[in-house]
Amino acid sequence: MKLHGYFRSSAAFRVRIALNLKGLKVEHCSHHLRKGEQRSASYLALNPQGLVPTLERDSGDVLSQSLAIIEWLEETHPLPSLLPPEPWARARVRAIALAVSCDIHPVQNLKVLNRLRGLGLDEAAVVEWAAWANKEGLEACEALLAAEPGPFCFGAAPTLADVCLVPQLGNARRFMVDVNRFPRLLAAEAAAMALPAFADAVPERQQDRE
Amino acid sequence: MKLHGYFRSSAAFRVRIALNLKGLKVEHCSHHLRKGEQRSASYLALNPQGLVPTLERDSGDVLSQSLAIIEWLEETHPLPSLLPPEPWARARVRAIALAVSCDIHPVQNLKVLNRLRGLGLDEAAVVEWAAWANKEGLEACEALLAAEPGPFCFGAAPTLADVCLVPQLGNARRFMVDVNRFPRLLAAEAAAMALPAFADAVPERQQDRE
Repeated sequence: MKLHGYFRSSAAFRVRIALNLKGLKVEHCSHHLRKGEQRSASYLALNPQGLVPTLERDSGDVLSQSLAIIEWLEETHPLPSLLPPEPWARARVRAIALAVSCDIHPVQNLKVLNRLRGLGLDEAAVVEWAAWANKEGLEACEALLAAEPGPFCFGAAPTLADVCLVPQLGNARRFMVDVNRFPRLLAAEAAAMALPAFADAVPERQQDRE
Repeated sequence: MKLHGYFRSSAAFRVRIALNLKGLKVEHCSHHLRKGEQRSASYLALNPQGLVPTLERDSGDVLSQSLAIIEWLEETHPLPSLLPPEPWARARVRAIALAVSCDIHPVQNLKVLNRLRGLGLDEAAVVEWAAWANKEGLEACEALLAAEPGPFCFGAAPTLADVCLVPQLGNARRFMVDVNRFPRLLAAEAAAMALPAFADAVPERQQDRE
Protein backbone atom coordinates (compact mmCIF):
# COMPACT_ATOMS: atom_id res chain seq x y z
CA MET A 1 0.00 0.00 0.00
CA LYS A 2 1.27 3.48 -0.90
CA LEU A 3 0.46 6.86 0.58
CA HIS A 4 0.88 9.71 -1.88
CA GLY A 5 1.61 12.79 0.18
CA TYR A 6 3.94 15.64 0.99
CA PHE A 7 5.75 16.28 4.24
CA ARG A 8 4.13 19.65 4.85
CA SER A 9 0.56 18.75 3.86
CA SER A 10 -1.49 18.71 7.03
CA ALA A 11 -4.05 16.41 5.38
CA ALA A 12 -1.29 13.86 4.63
CA PHE A 13 -0.03 14.38 8.20
CA ARG A 14 -3.45 13.24 9.50
CA VAL A 15 -3.22 10.00 7.54
CA ARG A 16 0.37 9.38 8.70
CA ILE A 17 -0.80 9.68 12.32
CA ALA A 18 -3.71 7.30 11.75
CA LEU A 19 -1.47 4.74 10.04
CA ASN A 20 1.01 4.96 12.93
CA LEU A 21 -1.74 4.59 15.55
CA LYS A 22 -3.01 1.49 13.72
CA GLY A 23 0.53 0.13 13.44
CA LEU A 24 0.39 0.02 9.62
CA LYS A 25 3.43 0.47 7.38
CA VAL A 26 3.03 1.91 3.88
CA GLU A 27 5.32 3.14 1.15
CA HIS A 28 5.43 6.95 1.03
CA CYS A 29 5.44 8.69 -2.37
CA SER A 30 6.16 12.40 -2.17
CA HIS A 31 4.69 14.96 -4.57
CA HIS A 32 6.24 18.40 -4.22
CA LEU A 33 3.26 20.71 -3.87
CA ARG A 34 5.17 23.97 -4.21
CA LYS A 35 6.65 22.74 -7.49
CA GLY A 36 3.12 21.82 -8.65
CA GLU A 37 3.81 18.07 -8.98
CA GLN A 38 0.23 17.37 -7.82
CA ARG A 39 -0.97 18.91 -11.11
CA SER A 40 1.01 16.46 -13.31
CA ALA A 41 -1.06 14.29 -15.66
CA SER A 42 0.13 11.14 -13.90
CA TYR A 43 -0.93 12.39 -10.46
CA LEU A 44 -4.25 13.77 -11.70
CA ALA A 45 -5.01 10.30 -13.05
CA LEU A 46 -4.72 9.05 -9.45
CA ASN A 47 -6.42 12.04 -7.85
CA PRO A 48 -8.45 14.32 -10.14
CA GLN A 49 -8.62 16.98 -7.42
CA GLY A 50 -4.84 17.38 -7.61
CA LEU A 51 -4.61 17.20 -3.83
CA VAL A 52 -2.71 15.00 -1.42
CA PRO A 53 -3.10 12.53 0.20
CA THR A 54 -4.11 9.62 -2.01
CA LEU A 55 -4.03 6.04 -0.78
CA GLU A 56 -3.11 3.45 -3.42
CA ARG A 57 -3.71 -0.20 -2.76
CA ASP A 58 -1.53 -2.95 -4.24
CA SER A 59 -4.43 -3.67 -6.62
CA GLY A 60 -4.01 -0.15 -8.03
CA ASP A 61 -7.31 1.06 -6.54
CA VAL A 62 -7.02 4.61 -5.27
CA LEU A 63 -8.81 6.61 -2.61
CA SER A 64 -8.67 10.36 -2.04
CA GLN A 65 -9.68 12.56 0.91
CA SER A 66 -7.86 12.12 4.21
CA LEU A 67 -11.00 11.57 6.29
CA ALA A 68 -12.34 8.95 3.85
CA ILE A 69 -8.97 7.18 4.08
CA ILE A 70 -8.96 7.31 7.90
CA GLU A 71 -12.58 6.10 8.19
CA TRP A 72 -11.59 3.19 5.91
CA LEU A 73 -8.59 2.41 8.12
CA GLU A 74 -10.91 2.54 11.15
CA GLU A 75 -13.38 0.12 9.55
CA THR A 76 -10.74 -2.32 8.35
CA HIS A 77 -8.33 -2.08 11.31
CA PRO A 78 -10.63 -1.29 14.23
CA LEU A 79 -8.02 -1.32 17.01
CA PRO A 80 -6.93 0.93 18.53
CA SER A 81 -10.17 2.71 17.83
CA LEU A 82 -10.16 6.33 16.65
CA LEU A 83 -13.88 6.73 17.32
CA PRO A 84 -15.71 5.90 20.55
CA PRO A 85 -18.40 3.18 20.45
CA GLU A 86 -21.51 5.26 21.20
CA PRO A 87 -23.05 7.03 18.13
CA TRP A 88 -23.49 10.50 19.69
CA ALA A 89 -19.95 10.41 21.06
CA ARG A 90 -18.67 9.34 17.63
CA ALA A 91 -20.57 12.21 16.05
CA ARG A 92 -19.03 14.76 18.42
CA VAL A 93 -15.55 13.50 17.58
CA ARG A 94 -16.34 13.73 13.87
CA ALA A 95 -17.69 17.28 14.36
CA ILE A 96 -14.27 18.45 15.58
CA ALA A 97 -12.48 16.56 12.80
CA LEU A 98 -14.79 18.19 10.24
CA ALA A 99 -14.58 21.66 11.81
CA VAL A 100 -10.84 21.43 11.12
CA SER A 101 -10.95 19.57 7.82
CA CYS A 102 -13.82 21.48 6.18
CA ASP A 103 -13.81 24.91 7.74
CA ILE A 104 -10.17 25.65 8.50
CA HIS A 105 -7.83 23.68 6.29
CA PRO A 106 -9.32 24.17 2.79
CA VAL A 107 -9.73 27.91 3.37
CA GLN A 108 -5.97 28.27 4.00
CA ASN A 109 -4.50 25.62 1.72
CA LEU A 110 -1.87 26.33 -0.93
CA LYS A 111 -4.41 26.50 -3.77
CA VAL A 112 -6.49 29.19 -2.08
CA LEU A 113 -3.46 31.19 -0.94
CA ASN A 114 -2.05 31.09 -4.48
CA ARG A 115 -5.34 32.36 -5.83
CA LEU A 116 -5.22 35.24 -3.36
CA ARG A 117 -1.68 36.04 -4.57
CA GLY A 118 -3.10 36.01 -8.12
CA LEU A 119 -5.63 38.64 -7.05
CA GLY A 120 -2.74 40.90 -6.08
CA LEU A 121 -2.61 40.34 -2.31
CA ASP A 122 0.84 40.83 -0.83
CA GLU A 123 2.45 38.19 1.42
CA ALA A 124 1.41 39.93 4.63
CA ALA A 125 -2.24 39.94 3.53
CA VAL A 126 -2.04 36.28 2.44
CA VAL A 127 -0.62 35.26 5.82
CA GLU A 128 -3.33 37.35 7.52
CA TRP A 129 -6.01 35.45 5.58
CA ALA A 130 -4.54 32.08 6.58
CA ALA A 131 -4.18 33.22 10.20
CA TRP A 132 -7.83 34.35 10.23
CA ALA A 133 -9.06 30.95 9.03
CA ASN A 134 -6.98 29.16 11.67
CA LYS A 135 -7.84 31.52 14.51
CA GLU A 136 -11.61 31.49 13.93
CA GLY A 137 -11.76 27.72 13.53
CA LEU A 138 -9.49 26.91 16.47
CA GLU A 139 -11.41 29.31 18.71
CA ALA A 140 -14.56 27.34 17.93
CA CYS A 141 -12.79 24.03 18.64
CA GLU A 142 -11.54 25.43 21.97
CA ALA A 143 -15.15 26.27 22.89
CA LEU A 144 -16.50 22.90 21.69
CA LEU A 145 -13.93 21.04 23.81
CA ALA A 146 -14.06 23.27 26.91
CA ALA A 147 -16.22 20.88 28.94
CA GLU A 148 -14.63 17.65 27.69
CA PRO A 149 -12.36 15.74 30.04
CA GLY A 150 -8.75 15.60 28.82
CA PRO A 151 -5.97 15.15 28.29
CA PHE A 152 -6.87 14.33 24.67
CA CYS A 153 -9.72 16.08 22.84
CA PHE A 154 -12.13 13.47 24.16
CA GLY A 155 -10.76 11.80 27.26
CA ALA A 156 -7.99 9.36 27.90
CA ALA A 157 -7.10 8.23 24.38
CA PRO A 158 -6.54 9.90 21.01
CA THR A 159 -9.40 10.02 18.52
CA LEU A 160 -9.97 11.28 15.01
CA ALA A 161 -10.34 14.74 16.58
CA ASP A 162 -6.72 14.73 17.80
CA VAL A 163 -5.59 13.28 14.47
CA CYS A 164 -6.98 16.39 12.74
CA LEU A 165 -6.22 18.95 15.44
CA VAL A 166 -2.48 18.36 15.84
CA PRO A 167 -1.57 19.03 12.17
CA GLN A 168 -3.80 22.11 12.13
CA LEU A 169 -2.06 23.61 15.17
CA GLY A 170 1.17 23.23 13.20
CA ASN A 171 -0.35 25.26 10.38
CA ALA A 172 -1.63 27.87 12.81
CA ARG A 173 1.90 28.41 14.10
CA ARG A 174 3.27 28.68 10.57
CA PHE A 175 0.79 31.48 9.99
CA MET A 176 1.82 33.17 13.23
CA VAL A 177 -1.39 32.60 15.17
CA ASP A 178 -0.89 32.97 18.93
CA VAL A 179 -1.86 29.43 19.89
CA ASN A 180 -1.55 30.25 23.61
CA ARG A 181 -5.13 31.47 23.22
CA PHE A 182 -6.14 27.81 23.07
CA PRO A 183 -5.05 26.12 26.32
CA ARG A 184 -7.47 23.19 25.94
CA LEU A 185 -6.19 22.47 22.43
CA LEU A 186 -2.55 22.78 23.55
CA ALA A 187 -3.20 20.26 26.34
CA ALA A 188 -4.61 17.80 23.81
CA GLU A 189 -1.65 18.43 21.50
CA ALA A 190 0.83 17.83 24.34
CA ALA A 191 -0.83 14.51 25.19
CA ALA A 192 -0.77 13.51 21.53
CA MET A 193 2.83 14.52 20.89
CA ALA A 194 3.95 12.33 23.79
CA LEU A 195 2.90 9.36 21.63
CA PRO A 196 5.34 8.14 18.95
CA ALA A 197 2.42 7.75 16.50
CA PHE A 198 2.03 11.54 16.47
CA ALA A 199 5.66 12.52 17.02
CA ASP A 200 6.90 10.32 14.16
CA ALA A 201 4.33 11.77 11.76
CA VAL A 202 5.40 15.43 11.99
CA PRO A 203 6.58 17.09 8.77
CA GLU A 204 10.13 17.53 10.11
CA ARG A 205 10.58 13.78 10.47
CA GLN A 206 9.53 12.82 6.93
CA GLN A 207 12.03 11.71 4.31
CA ASP A 208 10.91 14.40 1.86
CA ARG A 209 11.34 17.28 4.34
CA GLU A 210 13.30 20.31 3.18
CA MET B 1 -35.40 17.11 17.66
CA LYS B 2 -34.63 20.48 16.04
CA LEU B 3 -32.57 21.32 12.99
CA HIS B 4 -31.11 24.82 13.10
CA GLY B 5 -30.61 25.88 9.50
CA TYR B 6 -31.35 28.32 6.74
CA PHE B 7 -33.17 27.63 3.52
CA ARG B 8 -30.26 28.59 1.29
CA SER B 9 -27.46 26.88 3.24
CA SER B 10 -26.29 23.95 1.18
CA ALA B 11 -24.94 22.25 4.32
CA ALA B 12 -28.40 22.43 5.94
CA PHE B 13 -29.88 21.21 2.62
CA ARG B 14 -27.73 18.05 2.92
CA VAL B 15 -29.15 17.30 6.35
CA ARG B 16 -32.72 17.96 5.18
CA ILE B 17 -32.24 15.38 2.40
CA ALA B 18 -30.80 12.81 4.81
CA LEU B 19 -33.65 13.32 7.29
CA ASN B 20 -36.18 12.91 4.47
CA LEU B 21 -34.48 9.77 3.15
CA LYS B 22 -34.58 8.30 6.67
CA GLY B 23 -38.22 9.35 7.08
CA LEU B 24 -37.47 11.51 10.12
CA LYS B 25 -39.43 14.64 11.03
CA VAL B 26 -37.78 17.45 12.96
CA GLU B 27 -38.64 20.99 13.92
CA HIS B 28 -36.87 23.53 11.70
CA CYS B 29 -35.40 26.69 13.28
CA SER B 30 -34.25 29.25 10.76
CA HIS B 31 -31.32 31.59 11.33
CA HIS B 32 -31.02 34.31 8.70
CA LEU B 33 -27.42 34.10 7.57
CA ARG B 34 -27.41 37.30 5.52
CA LYS B 35 -28.68 39.22 8.55
CA GLY B 36 -25.91 37.62 10.63
CA GLU B 37 -28.25 35.81 13.03
CA GLN B 38 -25.74 32.92 13.20
CA ARG B 39 -23.38 35.28 15.05
CA SER B 40 -25.87 36.04 17.86
CA ALA B 41 -24.75 35.09 21.37
CA SER B 42 -27.60 32.60 21.70
CA TYR B 43 -26.71 30.82 18.46
CA LEU B 44 -22.97 30.82 19.21
CA ALA B 45 -23.77 29.07 22.49
CA LEU B 46 -25.26 26.25 20.39
CA ASN B 47 -22.65 26.33 17.64
CA PRO B 48 -19.39 28.16 18.42
CA GLN B 49 -18.46 28.11 14.73
CA GLY B 50 -21.44 30.32 13.95
CA LEU B 51 -22.40 28.05 11.08
CA VAL B 52 -25.53 26.13 10.20
CA PRO B 53 -26.70 23.40 10.50
CA THR B 54 -26.85 22.40 14.15
CA LEU B 55 -28.89 19.44 15.35
CA GLU B 56 -30.44 19.87 18.80
CA ARG B 57 -31.86 16.87 20.63
CA ASP B 58 -34.78 17.09 23.03
CA SER B 59 -32.22 16.66 25.83
CA GLY B 60 -30.60 19.94 24.72
CA ASP B 61 -27.48 18.18 23.42
CA VAL B 62 -26.22 19.80 20.24
CA LEU B 63 -24.20 18.58 17.28
CA SER B 64 -22.59 20.67 14.55
CA GLN B 65 -21.19 19.79 11.12
CA SER B 66 -23.56 18.40 8.49
CA LEU B 67 -21.51 15.26 7.79
CA ALA B 68 -21.21 14.42 11.49
CA ILE B 69 -24.99 14.81 11.78
CA ILE B 70 -25.61 12.60 8.75
CA GLU B 71 -23.17 9.89 9.90
CA TRP B 72 -25.01 9.93 13.25
CA LEU B 73 -28.36 9.55 11.47
CA GLU B 74 -26.86 6.68 9.46
CA GLU B 75 -25.63 4.91 12.61
CA THR B 76 -28.86 5.38 14.55
CA HIS B 77 -31.34 4.93 11.66
CA PRO B 78 -29.51 2.53 9.34
CA LEU B 79 -32.26 2.09 6.73
CA PRO B 80 -32.38 3.13 3.99
CA SER B 81 -28.60 3.10 4.04
CA LEU B 82 -26.65 6.10 2.76
CA LEU B 83 -23.40 4.14 2.68
CA PRO B 84 -22.81 0.77 1.00
CA PRO B 85 -21.82 -2.19 3.21
CA GLU B 86 -18.28 -2.85 1.93
CA PRO B 87 -15.56 -0.65 3.51
CA TRP B 88 -13.76 0.40 0.30
CA ALA B 89 -17.09 1.25 -1.37
CA ARG B 90 -18.09 3.27 1.71
CA ALA B 91 -14.78 5.10 1.55
CA ARG B 92 -15.29 6.03 -2.12
CA VAL B 93 -18.74 7.43 -1.33
CA ARG B 94 -17.26 9.44 1.54
CA ALA B 95 -14.47 10.73 -0.73
CA ILE B 96 -17.05 12.39 -3.01
CA ALA B 97 -18.99 13.75 -0.03
CA LEU B 98 -15.77 15.21 1.39
CA ALA B 99 -14.55 16.55 -1.96
CA VAL B 100 -17.75 18.64 -1.97
CA SER B 101 -17.95 19.40 1.74
CA CYS B 102 -14.27 20.20 2.37
CA ASP B 103 -12.88 21.43 -0.91
CA ILE B 104 -15.77 23.22 -2.60
CA HIS B 105 -18.34 24.45 -0.11
CA PRO B 106 -16.20 26.14 2.59
CA VAL B 107 -14.15 27.96 -0.06
CA GLN B 108 -17.30 29.62 -1.43
CA ASN B 109 -19.43 30.07 1.66
CA LEU B 110 -20.83 33.38 2.80
CA LYS B 111 -18.08 33.97 5.37
CA VAL B 112 -15.29 33.64 2.81
CA LEU B 113 -17.11 35.69 0.17
CA ASN B 114 -17.73 38.44 2.72
CA ARG B 115 -14.05 38.46 3.59
CA LEU B 116 -13.19 38.85 -0.08
CA ARG B 117 -15.61 41.79 -0.25
CA GLY B 118 -13.79 43.24 2.75
CA LEU B 119 -10.53 43.02 0.79
CA GLY B 120 -12.07 45.26 -1.82
CA LEU B 121 -13.13 42.69 -4.45
CA ASP B 122 -16.12 43.79 -6.53
CA GLU B 123 -19.17 41.55 -6.95
CA ALA B 124 -18.02 40.19 -10.32
CA ALA B 125 -14.71 39.09 -8.81
CA VAL B 126 -16.47 37.55 -5.79
CA VAL B 127 -18.77 35.53 -8.06
CA GLU B 128 -15.75 34.50 -10.15
CA TRP B 129 -14.04 33.19 -7.00
CA ALA B 130 -17.12 31.17 -6.02
CA ALA B 131 -17.51 29.88 -9.58
CA TRP B 132 -13.86 28.79 -9.62
CA ALA B 133 -14.24 26.77 -6.40
CA ASN B 134 -17.36 25.06 -7.75
CA LYS B 135 -15.99 24.41 -11.23
CA GLU B 136 -12.69 22.90 -10.07
CA GLY B 137 -14.31 20.70 -7.48
CA LEU B 138 -17.18 19.51 -9.64
CA GLU B 139 -14.77 18.74 -12.51
CA ALA B 140 -12.89 16.43 -10.14
CA CYS B 141 -16.14 14.79 -9.01
CA GLU B 142 -17.14 14.25 -12.66
CA ALA B 143 -13.81 12.47 -13.23
CA LEU B 144 -14.07 10.42 -10.03
CA LEU B 145 -17.56 9.20 -11.01
CA ALA B 146 -16.92 8.68 -14.74
CA ALA B 147 -16.59 4.90 -14.47
CA GLU B 148 -19.31 4.40 -11.85
CA PRO B 149 -22.61 2.87 -12.91
CA GLY B 150 -25.55 5.27 -12.56
CA PRO B 151 -28.02 6.66 -12.36
CA PHE B 152 -27.02 7.90 -8.89
CA CYS B 153 -23.40 8.72 -8.02
CA PHE B 154 -22.84 5.11 -7.02
CA GLY B 155 -25.38 2.84 -8.68
CA ALA B 156 -29.06 2.28 -8.19
CA ALA B 157 -29.74 4.12 -4.94
CA PRO B 158 -28.79 7.48 -3.44
CA THR B 159 -25.85 7.65 -1.06
CA LEU B 160 -24.10 10.30 1.00
CA ALA B 161 -22.39 11.36 -2.25
CA ASP B 162 -25.72 12.38 -3.84
CA VAL B 163 -26.79 14.03 -0.58
CA CYS B 164 -23.78 16.36 -0.87
CA LEU B 165 -23.66 16.71 -4.64
CA VAL B 166 -27.22 17.92 -5.27
CA PRO B 167 -27.02 21.00 -2.99
CA GLN B 168 -23.60 21.88 -4.42
CA LEU B 169 -24.90 21.83 -8.00
CA GLY B 170 -27.50 24.36 -6.84
CA ASN B 171 -24.70 26.61 -5.59
CA ALA B 172 -22.76 26.17 -8.82
CA ARG B 173 -25.76 27.44 -10.80
CA ARG B 174 -26.17 30.42 -8.44
CA PHE B 175 -22.57 31.33 -9.25
CA MET B 176 -23.23 30.92 -12.97
CA VAL B 177 -21.10 27.84 -13.55
CA ASP B 178 -22.01 26.04 -16.77
CA VAL B 179 -23.08 22.75 -15.22
CA ASN B 180 -23.61 21.18 -18.64
CA ARG B 181 -19.89 20.43 -18.46
CA PHE B 182 -20.78 17.72 -15.92
CA PRO B 183 -23.13 15.23 -17.63
CA ARG B 184 -22.41 12.44 -15.13
CA LEU B 185 -23.23 14.72 -12.21
CA LEU B 186 -26.39 16.01 -13.90
CA ALA B 187 -27.56 12.42 -14.45
CA ALA B 188 -27.11 11.70 -10.73
CA GLU B 189 -28.91 14.93 -9.85
CA ALA B 190 -31.84 14.06 -12.14
CA ALA B 191 -32.19 10.65 -10.51
CA ALA B 192 -32.07 12.25 -7.07
CA MET B 193 -34.53 15.03 -7.84
CA ALA B 194 -37.08 12.44 -8.95
CA LEU B 195 -37.24 11.37 -5.30
CA PRO B 196 -39.44 13.39 -2.91
CA ALA B 197 -36.69 13.21 -0.26
CA PHE B 198 -34.51 15.43 -2.45
CA ALA B 199 -37.23 17.49 -4.12
CA ASP B 200 -38.85 18.43 -0.80
CA ALA B 201 -35.50 19.55 0.65
CA VAL B 202 -34.68 22.23 -1.93
CA PRO B 203 -34.32 25.80 -0.65
CA GLU B 204 -37.37 27.01 -2.59
CA ARG B 205 -39.63 24.65 -0.68
CA GLN B 206 -38.56 25.67 2.82
CA GLN B 207 -40.76 27.77 5.07
CA ASP B 208 -38.05 30.40 5.57
CA ARG B 209 -37.48 30.92 1.84
CA GLU B 210 -37.44 34.49 0.55
